[in-house]
Amino acid sequence: MTLKLGVIGTGAIGQEHIRRCSKVLQGAKVVAVSDINLDGAQGVVSRLGLEAEVYANGHDVINAADVDAVIITSWGPTHEEFTLAAIAAGKPVFCEKPLAMSAEGCRRIVEAEVAYGRRLVQVGFMRPYDAGYRALKSVITQGEIGEPLMLHCAHRNPAVPESYTTDMAITDTLIHELDVLRWLTDDDYKSVQVVFPRSTKNSHAKLRDPQIVLFETHKGVRIDVEIFVNCAYGYDIQCEVVGETGIARLPEPASVQMRKEAKLATTILTDWKDRFIDAYDVELQAFINDIAIGQLQGPSAWDGFAAAVAGDACLKAQESGQIEPVEMPPRPAFYNR
Amino acid sequence: MTLKLGVIGTGAIGQEHIRRCSKVLQGAKVVAVSDINLDGAQGVVSRLGLEAEVYANGHDVINAADVDAVIITSWGPTHEEFTLAAIAAGKPVFCEKPLAMSAEGCRRIVEAEVAYGRRLVQVGFMRPYDAGYRALKSVITQGEIGEPLMLHCAHRNPAVPESYTTDMAITDTLIHELDVLRWLTDDDYKSVQVVFPRSTKNSHAKLRDPQIVLFETHKGVRIDVEIFVNCAYGYDIQCEVVGETGIARLPEPASVQMRKEAKLATTILTDWKDRFIDAYDVELQAFINDIAIGQLQGPSAWDGFAAAVAGDACLKAQESGQIEPVEMPPRPAFYNR
Amino acid sequence: MTLKLGVIGTGAIGQEHIRRCSKVLQGAKVVAVSDINLDGAQGVVSRLGLEAEVYANGHDVINAADVDAVIITSWGPTHEEFTLAAIAAGKPVFCEKPLAMSAEGCRRIVEAEVAYGRRLVQVGFMRPYDAGYRALKSVITQGEIGEPLMLHCAHRNPAVPESYTTDMAITDTLIHELDVLRWLTDDDYKSVQVVFPRSTKNSHAKLRDPQIVLFETHKGVRIDVEIFVNCAYGYDIQCEVVGETGIARLPEPASVQMRKEAKLATTILTDWKDRFIDAYDVELQAFINDIAIGQLQGPSAWDGFAAAVAGDACLKAQESGQIEPVEMPPRPAFYNR
Amino acid sequence: MTLKLGVIGTGAIGQEHIRRCSKVLQGAKVVAVSDINLDGAQGVVSRLGLEAEVYANGHDVINAADVDAVIITSWGPTHEEFTLAAIAAGKPVFCEKPLAMSAEGCRRIVEAEVAYGRRLVQVGFMRPYDAGYRALKSVITQGEIGEPLMLHCAHRNPAVPESYTTDMAITDTLIHELDVLRWLTDDDYKSVQVVFPRSTKNSHAKLRDPQIVLFETHKGVRIDVEIFVNCAYGYDIQCEVVGETGIARLPEPASVQMRKEAKLATTILTDWKDRFIDAYDVELQAFINDIAIGQLQGPSAWDGFAAAVAGDACLKAQESGQIEPVEMPPRPAFYNR
Repeated sequence: MTLKLGVIGTGAIGQEHIRRCSKVLQGAKVVAVSDINLDGAQGVVSRLGLEAEVYANGHDVINAADVDAVIITSWGPTHEEFTLAAIAAGKPVFCEKPLAMSAEGCRRIVEAEVAYGRRLVQVGFMRPYDAGYRALKSVITQGEIGEPLMLHCAHRNPAVPESYTTDMAITDTLIHELDVLRWLTDDDYKSVQVVFPRSTKNSHAKLRDPQIVLFETHKGVRIDVEIFVNCAYGYDIQCEVVGETGIARLPEPASVQMRKEAKLATTILTDWKDRFIDAYDVELQAFINDIAIGQLQGPSAWDGFAAAVAGDACLKAQESGQIEPVEMPPRPAFYNR
Repeated sequence: MTLKLGVIGTGAIGQEHIRRCSKVLQGAKVVAVSDINLDGAQGVVSRLGLEAEVYANGHDVINAADVDAVIITSWGPTHEEFTLAAIAAGKPVFCEKPLAMSAEGCRRIVEAEVAYGRRLVQVGFMRPYDAGYRALKSVITQGEIGEPLMLHCAHRNPAVPESYTTDMAITDTLIHELDVLRWLTDDDYKSVQVVFPRSTKNSHAKLRDPQIVLFETHKGVRIDVEIFVNCAYGYDIQCEVVGETGIARLPEPASVQMRKEAKLATTILTDWKDRFIDAYDVELQAFINDIAIGQLQGPSAWDGFAAAVAGDACLKAQESGQIEPVEMPPRPAFYNR
Repeated sequence: MTLKLGVIGTGAIGQEHIRRCSKVLQGAKVVAVSDINLDGAQGVVSRLGLEAEVYANGHDVINAADVDAVIITSWGPTHEEFTLAAIAAGKPVFCEKPLAMSAEGCRRIVEAEVAYGRRLVQVGFMRPYDAGYRALKSVITQGEIGEPLMLHCAHRNPAVPESYTTDMAITDTLIHELDVLRWLTDDDYKSVQVVFPRSTKNSHAKLRDPQIVLFETHKGVRIDVEIFVNCAYGYDIQCEVVGETGIARLPEPASVQMRKEAKLATTILTDWKDRFIDAYDVELQAFINDIAIGQLQGPSAWDGFAAAVAGDACLKAQESGQIEPVEMPPRPAFYNR
Repeated sequence: MTLKLGVIGTGAIGQEHIRRCSKVLQGAKVVAVSDINLDGAQGVVSRLGLEAEVYANGHDVINAADVDAVIITSWGPTHEEFTLAAIAAGKPVFCEKPLAMSAEGCRRIVEAEVAYGRRLVQVGFMRPYDAGYRALKSVITQGEIGEPLMLHCAHRNPAVPESYTTDMAITDTLIHELDVLRWLTDDDYKSVQVVFPRSTKNSHAKLRDPQIVLFETHKGVRIDVEIFVNCAYGYDIQCEVVGETGIARLPEPASVQMRKEAKLATTILTDWKDRFIDAYDVELQAFINDIAIGQLQGPSAWDGFAAAVAGDACLKAQESGQIEPVEMPPRPAFYNR
């Protein structure tokens, strides 16, 4: 039984997901798309040779009779509205980050989903589907390093444009750690502090770079995340979990080992798109498969809400220089893992 | 347009390929299967919930009107007959190793395919589809290490049963290197020598283990391959290419780095099935896609023939202890890459 | 010209230094020793076959006519008194950690040395003499990673006895980082904060373990040091310097790489004495050689004072949970590097 | 008791050894030197500020009443004569490679030493004193990898001058492996074969580079040594021992790990002098200490003879392309380890 998908937003990532669902993954096809740029949407459909209806309005995609599930890859500010509409229509929805523009917006989605009574929403956090993070989590859950006590993490980009400002280190960059570290440790943030080292000469007027974000979790785990978006040398994601009896570290991407020019070296990626490329396929295939078995299991609206709340606390900590609490309401049983 | 596949042989690897083509890959479905064990074949079809006809005879699968292409995963001695029949029927065929039980058998297939006038045969060598080998080949072809001069390789298994004899180190184990090293270096073997180190105490009466196989290629490259099938510690495939200006080494599989019990360690796989698991998917997807574009590009009948000829020379060298020539006829232009 | 040494204190480390100066290093010999345990001192002299006078009192060693320089390895509380006496006698003195029991005590030594008008004191910080730290500093000073922005460090011991309390993580363990990180970055601490992760089950009633100490330096560099003295897996010293254009990491000790039991592994040391064993030789040889050229260049009384001041701030930060300033008076020109 | 040394030959390595024995090591001093260039010898003595007699003739050094032991660092063709003279004088002698210009010459030295009745000769093979090789040997002797079955080795130099010819790959380069591999495996060579891969474009008219030398030992161990003296990328010594239950590999020299310019890299040395620099100190200190205890334990005249015999077989194998026997007489009990 093939899942019939409607896709709202045919920009770069929208096209990627359409290609994936049409040419790579199993069990789904795209039957409806929309974009504020109607010609663009039409172009994508013909380029990929799809038999898909093109709509002027995302709501028409959601409500199309032949659409079983919705993928939202439109402009961020529209995510909340379309996600709520999909819930109202009782259709499973995969919404790219951010789930909403505010924690309040995420909360409204959570409430709508709880009211509906069944999980319909998956948020586009792909790292929990990365083979490396999964191997790391498996090491932890199998007790190979005892209880986690500390995490040392880094999120480094070679460079960012002048339009990238200090707050975006949280909202655009740290957002991935905010989700995956909760998932990895099966824990929640209690407080957060942000410190600003001396800035690199490669940064811009409106960007303090690097930054270090320090979390305490409810279990007392201490997490430090270095965010360094003009690190110059590559796109480098590090995650080291220090446990009671050992330390486990996120695998480096496999790479040919070279002996050349007086160096013994492996390659560090420079393009973020290459780093988790397989995870996007796994993520969407899981969405398709979980719908087939009637039970979404990926990152939930609650996870999107939790990331948003933590992100707001980080932004506040950037401003205040103080240790800021991360205040989450109790998790509805509905979302228990 | 979905490619309709017939699968001959529903043993372990047959079932794997059926699952792959039905549940993982794009653009194909299994419409016909056969096995000498008819109930077994029927069981596979129902277990996987396929709409596939079950035939008592492989030839019926090949000749079934709705079968576009054939996958041969039956008992080795039947491969040549079924492959020739698929060629006769003008249907693309994916044949698992060995292509035939002898170099002569492979040659008959080559001649039949050349006579037919278009490539119809892909042999089930999966390593050229492994991401690591592809990265290694790309380093070489991009000239990053200059011209290759030497290859140091190893093929190690933790253990083999008593039924595994000295000659099987060539026919069952080295066979993978025989193909992938030709592909990696874009070269052919000129001669081969086999030396036997002191045997491990973990070997058996009918197995001299380890062995070292030494090749010279037409370009003068020297290749040494250590075959050690009772190495005890893991399943470990090594390939190091020494070039004029540097050395490139096959990536180790990505693994969580652990600090534990006074060791800084990564994991070495122990089950061969895990080592190239992704490559099987890529290999069969390529077969499906290449048929769609009307041009098979994977390991050819000629490659199967070349591996068989080299394998025969290795067996002779095991016996003689001498340097044995590897005598191949000139490659038909038909097979030029 | 052989330097004639007097050694005060013939306990474990005293005996090590006596052996070093007598049997390993060049240009010195031990001519006088003392210890509160007179028989013990006599035993050491005869066991090592030294021609050395044994005195009941450290002051007699300092004042012995044939003693050119003094090594203080006695009980910590006596260090200040003997060091001041050596300065008064105008004799070079190598004093093991701590230089004094308080920052004030260190300050008195600094003032005495400045008043004397020439450097006479070297403190027993050995890490600046470790080949790995020297290589790391050379990478930084050669500008290979641009300006340092962050340091991520760890000091891990497999286990400590019940007598080891929370404050000793600073005074016994972090003390080494307090010195070597100032030397490595050629910078001084501005403030410090201590956070306590969830404690390991392997810790004791009077020890919060692990701890994380966070420094800001005058140049704005941010340093985090994880102190984990019951980490179970080994004695592991980590230091990673994140610069504007790259990252440099302290070398792991060289070790045989093993492929065994499904692991690709190197050994992590478990005994701290093995980790910097060569550095002790280099450190004392430098003391001997620098005296010969009339200019001590190793860790100075000022460095001992700076470490003591930073250590006091760390202890205060452990108590307060606040960010505590590290208040140093301006460095006398006398100590400029 | 200080050992009084006479040094014959004050060229580059002679000066190094004189400096070592005078300024670095314990328990010895240089009291006599000679060189065919008398002024050169005088210059060395004054530059290093030694109280040493300068002789015109090496025999005068050997026979000087105050000379306890001799170090021979003169021109190769004089080694045999001076070594025999030292034996005749009953004085311990450290002779740099080669012990003699031929196996026959080495044999004459062996016979003279045996006739004398006590070990007097140590040959200047330094690798058995390298910490890495010692750690590797200890892994083997402790049975951590079971019985050795195969060794995969490489000796690579970045480049050699035009004066370096094919045979020098054996006599100047492989000579180190010829000794250290016997020591490492506690075994002797039975036969040798040399194969020539395609030559690098960076080689010269009179040099076939690289070469691969294949040994079989009396225990049946198979050893392959790649000699590649224009490898371009660095000075790189590799040694991997494949045993029945695991594999042990010579440690890479410790190096700062860098993340820079899209590479995760450590440094490979380019100057051979840096690779085993510590081993030279250990080697000569051992010579000095072993004389003090009256029992030389380092590389013996027999080891020098064995290396010469193996080297001759390698040269023959280079010519013949055949498997050549390595014919050694039985080892005199005198030399049993």
